[in-house]
Amino acid sequence: MAQDFTVTPWEVKGKVDYDKLIVQFGTQKMTSELKERAKRAINDELHVMLRRDVFFSHRDFDLILNDYEKGNGFFLYTGRAPSLGMHIGHLIPFIFTKWLQEKFKVNVYIEITDDEKFLRNVDYTLDQTKEWSYENILDIIAVGFDPNKTFIFQDTEYIKNMYPLSVKIAKKLTFNEVRATFGLDTSSNIGIIFYPALQIVPTMFEKRRCLIPAGIDQDPYWRLQRDIAESLGYFKAAQIHSKFLPPLTGPEGKMSSSQPETAIYLTDDPKTVERKIMKYAFSGGQATVELHRKYGGNPDIDVAFQWLYMFFEPDDQRIRKIEEDYRSGAMLTGELKQILVDKLNAFLEEHREKREKAKDLVNVFKFDGDLARDMWKRIHV
Amino acid sequence: MAQDFTVTPWEVKGKVDYDKLIVQFGTQKMTSELKERAKRAINDELHVMLRRDVFFSHRDFDLILNDYEKGNGFFLYTGRAPSLGMHIGHLIPFIFTKWLQEKFKVNVYIEITDDEKFLRNVDYTLDQTKEWSYENILDIIAVGFDPNKTFIFQDTEYIKNMYPLSVKIAKKLTFNEVRATFGLDTSSNIGIIFYPALQIVPTMFEKRRCLIPAGIDQDPYWRLQRDIAESLGYFKAAQIHSKFLPPLTGPEGKMSSSQPETAIYLTDDPKTVERKIMKYAFSGGQATVELHRKYGGNPDIDVAFQWLYMFFEPDDQRIRKIEEDYRSGAMLTGELKQILVDKLNAFLEEHREKREKAKDLVNVFKFDGDLARDMWKRIHV
Repeated sequence: MAQDFTVTPWEVKGKVDYDKLIVQFGTQKMTSELKERAKRAINDELHVMLRRDVFFSHRDFDLILNDYEKGNGFFLYTGRAPSLGMHIGHLIPFIFTKWLQEKFKVNVYIEITDDEKFLRNVDYTLDQTKEWSYENILDIIAVGFDPNKTFIFQDTEYIKNMYPLSVKIAKKLTFNEVRATFGLDTSSNIGIIFYPALQIVPTMFEKRRCLIPAGIDQDPYWRLQRDIAESLGYFKAAQIHSKFLPPLTGPEGKMSSSQPETAIYLTDDPKTVERKIMKYAFSGGQATVELHRKYGGNPDIDVAFQWLYMFFEPDDQRIRKIEEDYRSGAMLTGELKQILVDKLNAFLEEHREKREKAKDLVNVFKFDGDLARDMWKRIHV
Repeated sequence: MAQDFTVTPWEVKGKVDYDKLIVQFGTQKMTSELKERAKRAINDELHVMLRRDVFFSHRDFDLILNDYEKGNGFFLYTGRAPSLGMHIGHLIPFIFTKWLQEKFKVNVYIEITDDEKFLRNVDYTLDQTKEWSYENILDIIAVGFDPNKTFIFQDTEYIKNMYPLSVKIAKKLTFNEVRATFGLDTSSNIGIIFYPALQIVPTMFEKRRCLIPAGIDQDPYWRLQRDIAESLGYFKAAQIHSKFLPPLTGPEGKMSSSQPETAIYLTDDPKTVERKIMKYAFSGGQATVELHRKYGGNPDIDVAFQWLYMFFEPDDQRIRKIEEDYRSGAMLTGELKQILVDKLNAFLEEHREKREKAKDLVNVFKFDGDLARDMWKRIHV
């Protein structure tokens, strides 16, 4: 039977059936038992994205909890291929990673792949991707990571420390093994063919288990790591996978930087946010106010509701009330959208303030913080 | 018609017809006119290896001389994939490069590809290729380069400075383009696939023409450089190509590190040298002394004579006398071999002394010399 959705690292199409994806990818479901264990481990409430199954799938998260409980600890790794601008969906792994860091008190490594972005795109110069790296780093720092437990590094700058380990990894991966996973073919350039090795290096920054929070579409990349890690004396990378924040335009696919109407950018001003939500946000409401009052809206397909549920309304009571009111017809689409507009604009305003302050912190995260200083002294082998 | 010899970067088979190779590879013959021009340029005698056409072919050596005469200068680049031990043939490009440096007063860059050697060989560890790098560097320094105009660097150490330019180069080379030249296929590891980019970087260390002295078998590697250099704002690399010092065992193929009887190692002691030459050196002499006296020997196929001619007897009068005496039968094979044994042992003794002293110079060539210091401050883009 033909499948009505596709999820690969470079394409998300159709309405994703996340339960099916767990089976297809061979990952584990994030069960309530596991969530309870996590809650006990941190002795605190879980993050809204975990409570509400935005992070819905994992590999070896149970082993991460074992290691944590035994006092062996673990570390977090995430990253970003720098782009001209970041949208709200790009923040999900960072926000969640920051929360994990705070609750588990662990190190975070953030790889900025200025090389990959350059190598992947015919039109980009290395100067551009380096400039975008700086800009994206400001957005990442604004999320609130611990400056002494977080190391942000750009491949072109940190390469010397990573290169010896990267060639050991590269020696274990043939072109045949990476071609399908990374969407390469024999007409691909030799830089992007090598790149997978550099993406794997940070999973081996410590001789502990590494946990990678990322979109489920990134999972195939890490399967390569899991194939070779133990032969190099390191752990298979654990992962915790998120769903996609649906694009404004509807529940299918994911937000795209090249289609501005699908996404809210971190630089969108309040008027733009309002206009985009009001105009584009796919509605689960009825065609007229009368019909809506009579039949109610459908929050399950309503993008404004989904954004509130997944991200912007962490209060469980309030989101339940919104859901009930919308479903019953007591709340109109315009009212629902207005709640999201206000939440989004409050979030973005605060983000922009933190982003301004982040300018003074770039060198701390890259070079001068406790973890950064240690990392620059190390050659990974 | 089937050809009776093969020359590729990873195999030399049969008795090489060097004139045919010039046609096949599309290189230029090192003409007497060009040699006269070089002589005038340096206002000195030419090196024996140039006088006697050991360096017999080139690409753009005429343009190198143009640049030199116009005062634009040029620079030299050579390198080595480190190995457990070096044999006498390995020294040829270094000895000739050193002479070019001395006469033209130019910078020399020497790349030690500890990464490549590791990536090419299943059995080698990176620790091994790094150790061999150190040992080979001693042999290279012993050749007598100018410590303030020579920069010796290992890929795993200098990678940060090279990486930005290497990704620019890599972006211009597809797997299809490098596979044949570098003997790769889709089961090759992704590290060795990327490596050609790192080999090309040093040809762009200066915004001047680069001259690469190397065995003719290395020419295909540099064709890739010549295809892309100008699009990156650099010069096509010029080359000057040497013939192969024939293996002891006969005029076919080239010396092999894996067949000890074909080569003299820089570590061979006087007794070993004598034994190898007397036992293995392929002779152009007759079967008995009587026949030899009567018919004479054939220096054209005699390996001892060829080694003297190409390398160890730079005195033109003396080599002519040896040739005549051997051809006439006045000189016996044993006498000819003894001349080579004495020359070789004198050379090796001096080499080993210089190699001892080189231990104090490693850091100068790698880090502290004038050129090295400048290079560590530069990020190549």
